Amino acid sequence: MTSASDDPSRAVPRVALVGAGPGGADLLTLRAADRIRRADILLVDRLVDPDVLSLARPGARIMSVGKSKGDHPVPQEEICRRLVEAARTGAFVVRLKGGDPFIFGRGGEEMEALAAAGIPFEIVPGVTSALAAAAAARAPLTHRGVAQSVVFVTGHAALGGEPDLDWASLARPNQTVVVFMGVGAAPVLVHRLIGAGRSPATPVAVVENASRPQERILRTTLDGMADLLAAENVAGPAILIIGEAVDAGPHAPACAARRAEAVS
Amino acid sequence: MTSASDDPSRAVPRVALVGAGPGGADLLTLRAADRIRRADILLVDRLVDPDVLSLARPGARIMSVGKSKGDHPVPQEEICRRLVEAARTGAFVVRLKGGDPFIFGRGGEEMEALAAAGIPFEIVPGVTSALAAAAAARAPLTHRGVAQSVVFVTGHAALGGEPDLDWASLARPNQTVVVFMGVGAAPVLVHRLIGAGRSPATPVAVVENASRPQERILRTTLDGMADLLAAENVAGPAILIIGEAVDAGPHAPACAARRAEAVS
Repeated sequence: MTSASDDPSRAVPRVALVGAGPGGADLLTLRAADRIRRADILLVDRLVDPDVLSLARPGARIMSVGKSKGDHPVPQEEICRRLVEAARTGAFVVRLKGGDPFIFGRGGEEMEALAAAGIPFEIVPGVTSALAAAAAARAPLTHRGVAQSVVFVTGHAALGGEPDLDWASLARPNQTVVVFMGVGAAPVLVHRLIGAGRSPATPVAVVENASRPQERILRTTLDGMADLLAAENVAGPAILIIGEAVDAGPHAPACAARRAEAVS
Repeated sequence: MTSASDDPSRAVPRVALVGAGPGGADLLTLRAADRIRRADILLVDRLVDPDVLSLARPGARIMSVGKSKGDHPVPQEEICRRLVEAARTGAFVVRLKGGDPFIFGRGGEEMEALAAAGIPFEIVPGVTSALAAAAAARAPLTHRGVAQSVVFVTGHAALGGEPDLDWASLARPNQTVVVFMGVGAAPVLVHRLIGAGRSPATPVAVVENASRPQERILRTTLDGMADLLAAENVAGPAILIIGEAVDAGPHAPACAARRAEAVS
């Protein structure tokens, strides 16, 4: 058990690692908006919306550390180094990250760099894009009698290999699988999940650019997922939601009917 | 594939199912705050903060449908019925739920009731308490080289039994397990996870009342979790975070060191 007084990194923060939410500027939290307004220096990812950045005060310095197509990304070590360097100027630094800092955001590594440098920081959670995608697709991630758990994985694979996932565990029914960065790996995901026993008819929702103006929602089944992604040319950031709960909604039994089914 | 024009429930919403976030009023999103300000009728859970409700306009009707100790909870079917009834008055209705509506919030059932009644609605995602707990405990839920996935489960068990979970899958290393409503089931969780092969030394963070003024963070290991919860009398809403990533932070290697380790 630790207490705040033991830990110098819990002093008045010089850096805030802030989740900027999924994209749409009004899915920012009030706390995130406050930190952006107070920032002297902002280090921002590519996926952060310009409307979010417009909250910064006129004199604030905005540094992009995100990758964009054709550019080389700033390596993670370099982001950590710039973050520490910015904080050491005495400025209040906001590190603005898409979604939530601790869900596939590498916020843990930046936190460690700040702690190692003795710089006090805070973490401001955000709406991860998985939640925005589920809301947009009207796909509950947990759903009584249908999905008792939800697992977040990434389809990103190191060095061109296939994602290092536990296919048997992901193939279980009664669980929603949410895949971040999964478009490229979709053929492998389909092959492996069906191979491990997940039904080819499992419903799937794909949400591209969740909560942004160009948001697009596609519905299919697991066996059709890879083909649909290719046919629809899904190229923006996308979330794949795989599981029976995806079919909740207009055509599913409502509260009372569901209870009657459970009783019968 | 569906489009908005196919679906009458996608017309101008009469009901918003809104995630109010984990508790602290400034972890509300800007969109949620807007909907609360515009509401004629609010149906709210017990866990929603009074500061959040103070955003409602003076004439708005606030109906509590949450349970509190010693009271009987409003059954889910009755909440659905009241939601539909409120919307049919022509009022703009906000159903305000703790956390995110689609993570252990039974928002899916309320969505189905609205859809079955032909009432247009929207879903406003929120910061689930798991993310607020992780931020408070400085415990990344995914962490490079340590946790490639995160699974959200509930410790709530039907009819006094034990939670219906896939212990083998949860016992895998390199995955963070987040347990909602897990305090009562903690002895079973510890016994089953260790029995299925998860290391007794797996780091654990317990966050009670995440993001509220009375927030409390406890750190332990899996084999000590149940005893600590009992000794510390954890009685408020709590999130259990179980996994190696919990130990990221001040004493872990930072970016550069992590890279050196990975290379060596």
